[in-house]
Amino acid sequence: PDEAAMRDTRDLQSRLTKPPGALGVLEDLSVRLAGLAGGCPPPLPEPAAVAIFAADHGVHARGVSPWPQEVTAQMVANFLAGGAVVNAFAAQVGAEVTVVDVGVAAPLAPAPGLLPRKIAPGTADMTVAPAMTPDQVRRAVETGIEVARDLVAAGNRCLITGDMGIANTTASAALIAAFTGLPPEEVTGRGTGIDDATHQHKIEVVRTALAHHGLLPAPAASAPGGACDPSPAVPPQAVPPSPAVASPAGPLEVLAAVGGLEHAALAGFILGAAACRVPVVLDGVIAGAAALAAVALAPEALGACVAGHRSVEPGHAATVEHLGLRPLVDLELRLGEGTGALLALPLVQSAVRVLHEVATFDSAGVSDKSGS
Amino acid sequence: PDEAAMRDTRDLQSRLTKPPGALGVLEDLSVRLAGLAGGCPPPLPEPAAVAIFAADHGVHARGVSPWPQEVTAQMVANFLAGGAVVNAFAAQVGAEVTVVDVGVAAPLAPAPGLLPRKIAPGTADMTVAPAMTPDQVRRAVETGIEVARDLVAAGNRCLITGDMGIANTTASAALIAAFTGLPPEEVTGRGTGIDDATHQHKIEVVRTALAHHGLLPAPAASAPGGACDPSPAVPPQAVPPSPAVASPAGPLEVLAAVGGLEHAALAGFILGAAACRVPVVLDGVIAGAAALAAVALAPEALGACVAGHRSVEPGHAATVEHLGLRPLVDLELRLGEGTGALLALPLVQSAVRVLHEVATFDSAGVSDKSGS
Repeated sequence: PDEAAMRDTRDLQSRLTKPPGALGVLEDLSVRLAGLAGGCPPPLPEPAAVAIFAADHGVHARGVSPWPQEVTAQMVANFLAGGAVVNAFAAQVGAEVTVVDVGVAAPLAPAPGLLPRKIAPGTADMTVAPAMTPDQVRRAVETGIEVARDLVAAGNRCLITGDMGIANTTASAALIAAFTGLPPEEVTGRGTGIDDATHQHKIEVVRTALAHHGLLPAPAASAPGGACDPSPAVPPQAVPPSPAVASPAGPLEVLAAVGGLEHAALAGFILGAAACRVPVVLDGVIAGAAALAAVALAPEALGACVAGHRSVEPGHAATVEHLGLRPLVDLELRLGEGTGALLALPLVQSAVRVLHEVATFDSAGVSDKSGS
Repeated sequence: PDEAAMRDTRDLQSRLTKPPGALGVLEDLSVRLAGLAGGCPPPLPEPAAVAIFAADHGVHARGVSPWPQEVTAQMVANFLAGGAVVNAFAAQVGAEVTVVDVGVAAPLAPAPGLLPRKIAPGTADMTVAPAMTPDQVRRAVETGIEVARDLVAAGNRCLITGDMGIANTTASAALIAAFTGLPPEEVTGRGTGIDDATHQHKIEVVRTALAHHGLLPAPAASAPGGACDPSPAVPPQAVPPSPAVASPAGPLEVLAAVGGLEHAALAGFILGAAACRVPVVLDGVIAGAAALAAVALAPEALGACVAGHRSVEPGHAATVEHLGLRPLVDLELRLGEGTGALLALPLVQSAVRVLHEVATFDSAGVSDKSGS
């Protein structure tokens, strides 16, 4: 990040007609976005575009979700018809919606708003094989980078992550366990809503997949950091919070083993946004898992990431904490699609707009604190 | 509230193309707003208007704020020139800004966007006299009702509270203590930012004012409920949470004793919104104190109230808890003006938009859970 731009922004914030620090988290956000853009004020993050990366998951066959796999394609059709919650939220905040098929099992008919980028008709079942080949992962990441680049080239100044894929919270949990070193039972949630028995089964599926690929974190005794801690001999308090605990397997290998095609594409999307110095508002647990991969690949990508919201998924809370991000919205959402990130968009825009439009004490003729 | 409309909304939410409950707090909000409007779906809460009620406070003379009193009028000029944070946030979310002078000490020149409704040039010092006369309180409340009614008549379908008045967090703390029965030290915060010594002094000023008017809650031993508990003989667990602990002094008397002209006007504004069955998004601690008064006057007004955000003021957290409201945004803001409520507006609008625009499983041809 551009330290001078961040300093300039802190200085400007202190001169605006408001008590110092009165905008709380939004002031810190404005400073981060100035550091990303390399100037003060950073450009207004609008227009904004949400890219919904859709894919299916071989692990669905393990019975981790009560929803049939064809719902992925049905919901893509719903997005394209404008009938999903993501469409309503995008309309409310003025964001464009693009759907990217990177791996939906069913063939999808061409449609306006759909980018056909299918790499495979879903992943393999990660409990018995790598979910993706190395080549598929690479192509998915590249696809995400290209989508980000194209959306920025089209004039967008803020990108928003979206996702669709029945069973993708299972793959997310596996990725989060691998990247954070947390045990499966702490990062595996109920997704779109499952009962206790299915939840227990889902945790075991995640554990089985991680074990199959040699990615199971060490038992809790060796936490924090677990198997992924690069320097277990150093006392925890001496280790600065690491935004990217690199898995010994390598981020692309982890993605290939237990990820989804949309996770790999979203990781690329985040890298692409960072390369363009454009903020990317992350949605929930799927985007969070992808962000862990992106930051493991390129730690500086973290500077482009804004945590749109905190979902109810336990793995998501662990992820934003691991990344050191503060979610902007916290309303017990668990939908995905990009919905939580879209709700955060006006907050991100408002944070930056202040730097462009608010008067200083001098310019407005307002007395500063203590009559100075 | 209209129970049938609420039932219809819960039913509709269960049929929309998303997992049941996936929108968390926003689903509950949509149900409340349907109950308020008396139909499903309730009207989209737009356009929206923020009314900034501005007034000065006699208690400023007690040294409770580091800011000179003239900042109230200077900030009004800043609002009217479009240079304040409230203007930037309102522009971002598409809300209209109106400033209502109900009690600024300085004379204000006529200006577009300023409603001249000055009832007095500030309140009296509440530590030595009632802040307002009964007639002033009545006129301020009526003014707030009229402003709400006029904004709704002009087509607005969502009202937003705004406020400006140096020292108004001191009056807010006194009101909150009186209405909730909490002791001054638990509800008196640092406002726009004061040091420890000034904070202690401010607490004592609040205590002195409450004692002067016989409004000081009983010592903590008799809590919960304190002096305001209408039935101290009933065990607390047997008392349903009361949204409005009526002060023995009566809400208008409490307002007159320790309130501000903007608090009284905001209480009227909330009553006016409720009478029009239009939601009113509450900003921070000043609006919260006013809402306590409004709900004490008319408990059904609570149905129109949406807690826009949770500010860092301790009295505000106590207030939203007392009212049973869940704040939508929680970003450590402490600015006032209406800023926190404006950030929440797109969330409120999104919650309702879902009911208007999202397809049902049937209409979209999406398989429901478990393949049904």
